[in-house]
Amino acid sequence: MQVATEDVVAVHQLYGRQSHAIDSGDAAGWAATFTADGEFRSPTYPEPATGTAELTAFAERFHAAGEHLRHVVSTIHVRPGATPDTLRADAYLQIVASTHLVRLTVLDDELARTGGGWRVRRRTVHRDS
Amino acid sequence: MQVATEDVVAVHQLYGRQSHAIDSGDAAGWAATFTADGEFRSPTYPEPATGTAELTAFAERFHAAGEHLRHVVSTIHVRPGATPDTLRADAYLQIVASTHLVRLTVLDDELARTGGGWRVRRRTVHRDS
Amino acid sequence: MQVATEDVVAVHQLYGRQSHAIDSGDAAGWAATFTADGEFRSPTYPEPATGTAELTAFAERFHAAGEHLRHVVSTIHVRPGATPDTLRADAYLQIVASTHLVRLTVLDDELARTGGGWRVRRRTVHRDS
Repeated sequence: MQVATEDVVAVHQLYGRQSHAIDSGDAAGWAATFTADGEFRSPTYPEPATGTAELTAFAERFHAAGEHLRHVVSTIHVRPGATPDTLRADAYLQIVASTHLVRLTVLDDELARTGGGWRVRRRTVHRDS
Repeated sequence: MQVATEDVVAVHQLYGRQSHAIDSGDAAGWAATFTADGEFRSPTYPEPATGTAELTAFAERFHAAGEHLRHVVSTIHVRPGATPDTLRADAYLQIVASTHLVRLTVLDDELARTGGGWRVRRRTVHRDS
Repeated sequence: MQVATEDVVAVHQLYGRQSHAIDSGDAAGWAATFTADGEFRSPTYPEPATGTAELTAFAERFHAAGEHLRHVVSTIHVRPGATPDTLRADAYLQIVASTHLVRLTVLDDELARTGGGWRVRRRTVHRDS
């Protein structure tokens, strides 16, 4: 079973928009790339962030931390999900400072179709070592 | 408003072609990824390069500098432009040497539809710190 | 001549799937992204690996080496091949450890259409200096 061309491209667009949102300090824009009940889990942080309000607050804290970091996404593979309205995606995310690689993480996402297009429903970040 | 699938993919192709052109020393090929009146602005260089002749000369100087660098493009987000025949794109560009990250820059592009497909009309490079 | 949108996206998917396969230790899955007579050449290794059995063994040795590395693919440019059923692709591949860039290589691939979709028929890896 193959993911449709337009869905793969929509996921590439979603990831591009998402990284540029958080890196430019647009916390609401970043939260809006998740579903309303979206979930963000990462070993970097003790607690998951769930739902638009917590996700927005998470992105605001990230930006307020002041270090100027970039979320570099690549090597995207979009897979069918459990239902026709879900997808899975694997990708590499390198969080980098200007000239120093800060960390490399792997995204394990579940995406869901909404009236506004594909959104991340659940993100589980796997951190290397 | 959404950018059409084929236009997003055309921009990915354009960026791929563009990086490989300048990195392989194909200065004319790199300049040809801009419109005939295309403009390149970067904080790395004192003056913008405008139009095919200046862009070609710019790419020739880059290559002649002799350091073997790679233009790694990722995290592309293609947005609608001011008119149906323009698009905007955000992307990350890491300029890297073999094993050393030289710098990370952000592309802020305006693209225009031409008889030969999408081309960069104006590139403004934002350099991190 | 332009490569069709769905073929470009299929190549992006293939590369995503391929990297995640070898990085997760799925040697057979990685070999399956090549044609049955697929070939892998790289200056990092003395001999090419040819055909599914050798490719699988290659990926098993890579994983057994134990260092946890990531194949980060970006800057993909898909070009027409010599026949309608072949394509060429240029891309950047950065092989990275958690926080250290191990090496940067350039993929020069020939892909072929099979009953199961596009597959790498021949991969020649160019290593930077």
